[in-house]
Amino acid sequence: MTPDPRDPVAVAQALIACESVTPDEGGALALLERLLTPLGFSVERPVFSASGTPDVENLYARRGEGAAFVFAGHTDVVPTGDAAGWRHGPFSGAIENGELHGRGAVDMKGAVACMVAAVARRPEAAPVAFLITGDEEGPAVNGTAKLLEWAASRGERFSACLLGEPTNPEALGDEIKVGRRGSLSGTVTIRGVQGHVAYPHRADNPVRKLQKALAALMDEPLDQGTDVFQPSNLEVVSVEAGAGAFNVIPSEARFAFNIRYNDRHDADTLSALIVERLDRAVGEGAYQLVFEPRTGDAFLTPPGPLSDLVADAVEAETGRRPALTTSGGTSDARFIKSYCPVVEFGLVGQTMHQIDERVAVADLETLTRIYERALVAATGQASLQ
Amino acid sequence: MTPDPRDPVAVAQALIACESVTPDEGGALALLERLLTPLGFSVERPVFSASGTPDVENLYARRGEGAAFVFAGHTDVVPTGDAAGWRHGPFSGAIENGELHGRGAVDMKGAVACMVAAVARRPEAAPVAFLITGDEEGPAVNGTAKLLEWAASRGERFSACLLGEPTNPEALGDEIKVGRRGSLSGTVTIRGVQGHVAYPHRADNPVRKLQKALAALMDEPLDQGTDVFQPSNLEVVSVEAGAGAFNVIPSEARFAFNIRYNDRHDADTLSALIVERLDRAVGEGAYQLVFEPRTGDAFLTPPGPLSDLVADAVEAETGRRPALTTSGGTSDARFIKSYCPVVEFGLVGQTMHQIDERVAVADLETLTRIYERALVAATGQASLQ
Ligand SMILES: [Zn+2]
Ligand SMILES: [Zn+2]
Repeated sequence: MTPDPRDPVAVAQALIACESVTPDEGGALALLERLLTPLGFSVERPVFSASGTPDVENLYARRGEGAAFVFAGHTDVVPTGDAAGWRHGPFSGAIENGELHGRGAVDMKGAVACMVAAVARRPEAAPVAFLITGDEEGPAVNGTAKLLEWAASRGERFSACLLGEPTNPEALGDEIKVGRRGSLSGTVTIRGVQGHVAYPHRADNPVRKLQKALAALMDEPLDQGTDVFQPSNLEVVSVEAGAGAFNVIPSEARFAFNIRYNDRHDADTLSALIVERLDRAVGEGAYQLVFEPRTGDAFLTPPGPLSDLVADAVEAETGRRPALTTSGGTSDARFIKSYCPVVEFGLVGQTMHQIDERVAVADLETLTRIYERALVAATGQASLQ
Repeated sequence: MTPDPRDPVAVAQALIACESVTPDEGGALALLERLLTPLGFSVERPVFSASGTPDVENLYARRGEGAAFVFAGHTDVVPTGDAAGWRHGPFSGAIENGELHGRGAVDMKGAVACMVAAVARRPEAAPVAFLITGDEEGPAVNGTAKLLEWAASRGERFSACLLGEPTNPEALGDEIKVGRRGSLSGTVTIRGVQGHVAYPHRADNPVRKLQKALAALMDEPLDQGTDVFQPSNLEVVSVEAGAGAFNVIPSEARFAFNIRYNDRHDADTLSALIVERLDRAVGEGAYQLVFEPRTGDAFLTPPGPLSDLVADAVEAETGRRPALTTSGGTSDARFIKSYCPVVEFGLVGQTMHQIDERVAVADLETLTRIYERALVAATGQASLQ
């Protein structure tokens, strides 16, 4: 049974009932098509493929002509973990004490439901589009990136985009994300010469250089941050040397790191900086450095018309002016930013990816009204650039 | 067939033929009993046991009354590794190009054969004893330590001891060992708080403290060494943190170290120094430190009558005055030093514990004559204290 599209709670419950753990569509996109088509949208569900990754289904919908205001999001969810550990079944959509329970309640079937309710309650608002992927929580290869290319190749144009990721740490109205940090990962291998601890002069313990390399990467900050970005940050995520025998000097030491960086760097300048520090600490040629495939530089939609428009809508409904931030992990906004200005505002993220993920039913109504205001304002404006 | 006890090469071949990989006796001690009994020795072969380790057979032999000059050694050998990789079978005792091949050729069936030949050629030399264990290459729990206790409890007394470990790095005559460094091992665990790399303020990456702890232990020397001892030396033998995911800050970091230390320290003072450095680097209570069971402090038989006597014998046969050193790994001398002065002199160690372990046949004859000289001088002197 298709729920009333104007009721975000009923739509969210119906979406949660779809078992759409990445890469399974689980009926979620089919449900959106059934909801959006009667609201005047033309809907397409392209499937994208790439070798080594599962095929993924996506959804594109449009109402009206011209450069559209876009609601973007995803219907795939992370795995449930131990389903028996949930207070209510992860796909039940049960409501208790004013909270709706289920995987995806906040990340981000709840927000997608609010988007649907917003366009249902504002049938006159146009041009408006939906970019919904089934591959945000997975490899993100057959998702938003390809959907944007696909749409662009068909001549689709966008004025601005509002992405519904859960941006609020504590309460609805906390934060709008106007950018995201970039992410760069790598592995450093330092070769030594194995030997017996009693004869260290015949060996070369790579742990000495390991220690110096770690110090070189961790001791000095990468930058001081900017007005809207936190300082870039490097974390060493693993270290490995030796086989556990107390009398053997290891032949090799290895560590891996991840950097979340702001727009003072890009992957090229940052790679060069890492190499420079390692060269200085342990010597050129004394180590091997392999970077992981790049996942995107930092980006920023500078505070301006779009963020003002969304902030106004949030303030009107919550009485609070949200902060403009760039913290947290990556999102599909890193793909969208190449096509149009994009900001992110959604539900409260506290329980995302956890057991007993849940959302306050009241927040679904409030977020719907925020999305309504943004939609009306955005489709009534000539430009949000 | 029992070989001629005056021929060190024949005795060495017969010993190598015994497959006495620790803890197997392999017939080696039975062979020694057959060789020594006709030479006027009373021989006993006590077996010692301890829970968690295999039973091990040992040999004690004495000729003459009073405080005996002791030849000490072991007949057990380390495993052969890939036996098919040997030029000659590891238990073949084959001679090629003037070299005798086989596991134990230098460590130390060859030297034990020279000791037997020395007492066979000098039937008048007494009092002299043999302390031979089958547990030197293994846990060393049911070997020399217990054999010494066992002998002492029966009223056996010793004037001095010559242990036949391979002490020469390059050529017979290089070095007499007059002491050994102590060995102390430990493991340091640093607890952190796991988290996502995008939210480092909610986590506590233990790799930061790991780096500081490594620097504190490795950067500053433990001492400058002494006249006869190298500087004490610490090697980090393993490091471990993280599970390999690029987006997870690890919950724990761990490293293990081994220290080879001179007589400026004992295990107590050294432990205290390590704790002091770690406290200063990462803070008291921020880490857990577990030491391995202690295996013995550094010790020194100060250069004097015993080392002079052995050095004279070496110089008379090789034309070279050996250096008095304390380098290298531990040996059973760490147990013997509590009963009488002990020095070590044996064959050339280059191939010990390796595939194609081998000894120059000429060295076996020379070492026998060195042992003869030492035996005659030692049993003709009132005291070597
Ligand atoms: Zn999400
Ligand atoms: Zn040995």
